[in-house]
Amino acid sequence: MAFCTDREDIYSVCLSAVDRFMKVNNIPYSWIGRLEVASETILDHSKAIKTHLMSLFEASGNTDVEGIDSMNACYAGTNALFNSAAWVESSAWDGRYALVVSADIAEYSAGAARPTGGCGAVVMLVGPNAPLVMERARASHMENAWDFYKPHLHSPYPVVDGKFSNSCYLRSLDICYQRFVQKFAQQQEGGGKPFSVIEDAQHVLFHAPYNKLVQKSFARLLFNEFLSVPGTAENPAFAALKPFAATVREQSYEDVPLEKAAVAVSKQWYAEKVAPGITIPQQLGNMYTASLYAGLMSLIANQGEKLAGKRVLMFSYGSGLASSMFSLRVPEDAAAAKALASIAAKADIPARLEARVSVDPAKFNAWMETREKLHAKQDGAFVLEGPTDAQQYFKGAYFLTERDANGRRKYEQVQ
Amino acid sequence: MAFCTDREDIYSVCLSAVDRFMKVNNIPYSWIGRLEVASETILDHSKAIKTHLMSLFEASGNTDVEGIDSMNACYAGTNALFNSAAWVESSAWDGRYALVVSADIAEYSAGAARPTGGCGAVVMLVGPNAPLVMERARASHMENAWDFYKPHLHSPYPVVDGKFSNSCYLRSLDICYQRFVQKFAQQQEGGGKPFSVIEDAQHVLFHAPYNKLVQKSFARLLFNEFLSVPGTAENPAFAALKPFAATVREQSYEDVPLEKAAVAVSKQWYAEKVAPGITIPQQLGNMYTASLYAGLMSLIANQGEKLAGKRVLMFSYGSGLASSMFSLRVPEDAAAAKALASIAAKADIPARLEARVSVDPAKFNAWMETREKLHAKQDGAFVLEGPTDAQQYFKGAYFLTERDANGRRKYEQVQ
Repeated sequence: MAFCTDREDIYSVCLSAVDRFMKVNNIPYSWIGRLEVASETILDHSKAIKTHLMSLFEASGNTDVEGIDSMNACYAGTNALFNSAAWVESSAWDGRYALVVSADIAEYSAGAARPTGGCGAVVMLVGPNAPLVMERARASHMENAWDFYKPHLHSPYPVVDGKFSNSCYLRSLDICYQRFVQKFAQQQEGGGKPFSVIEDAQHVLFHAPYNKLVQKSFARLLFNEFLSVPGTAENPAFAALKPFAATVREQSYEDVPLEKAAVAVSKQWYAEKVAPGITIPQQLGNMYTASLYAGLMSLIANQGEKLAGKRVLMFSYGSGLASSMFSLRVPEDAAAAKALASIAAKADIPARLEARVSVDPAKFNAWMETREKLHAKQDGAFVLEGPTDAQQYFKGAYFLTERDANGRRKYEQVQ
Repeated sequence: MAFCTDREDIYSVCLSAVDRFMKVNNIPYSWIGRLEVASETILDHSKAIKTHLMSLFEASGNTDVEGIDSMNACYAGTNALFNSAAWVESSAWDGRYALVVSADIAEYSAGAARPTGGCGAVVMLVGPNAPLVMERARASHMENAWDFYKPHLHSPYPVVDGKFSNSCYLRSLDICYQRFVQKFAQQQEGGGKPFSVIEDAQHVLFHAPYNKLVQKSFARLLFNEFLSVPGTAENPAFAALKPFAATVREQSYEDVPLEKAAVAVSKQWYAEKVAPGITIPQQLGNMYTASLYAGLMSLIANQGEKLAGKRVLMFSYGSGLASSMFSLRVPEDAAAAKALASIAAKADIPARLEARVSVDPAKFNAWMETREKLHAKQDGAFVLEGPTDAQQYFKGAYFLTERDANGRRKYEQVQ
């Protein structure tokens, strides 16, 4: 899992990610007409993370950049993506690109949950003629739930009811799936045959707080397919689910024998459809808003041009709760294949994962304590202890040089 | 100004506002396909205010409601409105309405700034065939500024550099105005004549932290018109601005003689164009995200059907900073006139302002202290002291009955 010392915060993480993205893709800041940030790493109750990123635009003179921050747990990246795509389709669109930044530093109090933290940021460019196309069918489920939330404002740590949160996640998956299938059919000319995960989704990505939930979720999708899609119940590959044919969905979120049977049934498809999209979340840990899109980046890094013509089914979940299921389609042409290969090459994922420095758990815990204290600090400037030497950072990364008594922050970029 | 005891919080304020809106307008919850909340009153670092409002949807069974919370100081309502309007124009639109809720409780530490607080919520329904139409020209200015922000997470109060924030506001107004004028001209077939506030905007609304800034801002707009619109400099009504013809915009934000001259010049138009849009902000105080839209509600309450055929110029500002200028147009037809008269009647502003109960400053200060302590509270349930008897609330208002040690909140509705 990734973590930060006191020299990195949500602003430096976003500055590092956007600066790198714009440089490796050689995009002038003047091309950006909208910039949205999605995060639940809140260090200010008023000033958006997006405003910090406007520093990067200064040299270009372009300050006519719509969009601010979206917030609801791990879901906000999907909200920002939907907003930016709608902007491109709207009469307000001025022909420029939108930039969506999903980033979080996920931290937990000392104990069993601490290793489920992580850190990551994903930058997405939204515009016409993209190699990943948002399809029309999309379904949401939103609800007032207290499964995971952060009411203790002095603390960076959430209040979590883990078991309940898993149920909320799987229940939302069920509801979104049923609505998605219905909407997908409505979009098909003349009705068409029902949506099948096995036949119609070459890849499936989930919000990934930890990988076991991804396995369970994919299994749950196939259980839904078993219950809903005509013919599936007769498919010998689904035989192990037969004893659960009469199961009431709403009462089965903690049904362990069902879960085990579904995971077993799903195994033959998991390797092909799910595994290529879990590399980064497995390496960096939970990234909250960035998790699902780090899955997408993993898929592109692993499959590149092989994705041409494929459909990717996406499930986004944020506690509290907000959830959506939607799909991306890669056009079946050489331009899309080439574009995805180029994204994979520029993102340079294997080398960047390899270049990380490992730190032993005791040191990590000490940094968590330092960060916890700074989060709660009420007066005075921060005394920062983290590294300032360039070798501790990726080239081009930003780190915090000052957080004064008035809460203002300053950064330096590693040259 | 309006304020809250410990029995009301940002969630209860939004619950009260949305429930009332849906009831007086007789709108079924199933008609809503998107719900966004804009606020900088942050009581949770993960769970969106929007999720609390999903409780109101429960009986309808409609949980397929996109959208979450937007955040950047007083600007977020404009962001949410832009998002919802774009959704209605996008291929993702499913024919239902969007609901935008802008709400804040603005509080300041004891001292000179405390009386500049306030509280308010505005609910907007976004859909086709509306009596207020968003026009295409819109211009933004976004920047990384530390003029007003809330880095002290244990406190409900902001850090404010008042003088600098005023400069940021007026500078943003200048930049947005110049861009808006340019874009407006581009939208006109065959070029058209330059946009003139005096001739083309029958009403002008500003984000209104306090009314003196509204006066200064309108004066500043006319100073811009004096500098930019051909013929204005020769208009005798602008004679008092002649000595400032060579003024450099960027150096004049604290130029008191210029400000005085511009306010004097603007007076003859202020009563007609600006005054009808300040009623609610003047009565309730600063409402942060709700301020500009409470101005719009004031205008509708005061002008109603007289707005048919009129254009309203809007300036939205949120510290940190984000700002936009855009315009709304009321169609010149009987249906729009009737719809606005109906909105005015249902909002029932004069009677609701009249029905408020006044509280003396010492009691208000005591509540501020209580609320400050609860905001900083780290452990245990809240002990609530505010009123629970129905007579202390508007009928249908929600109030807090419990905030447990885990941070979960429960509400009751006044019958």
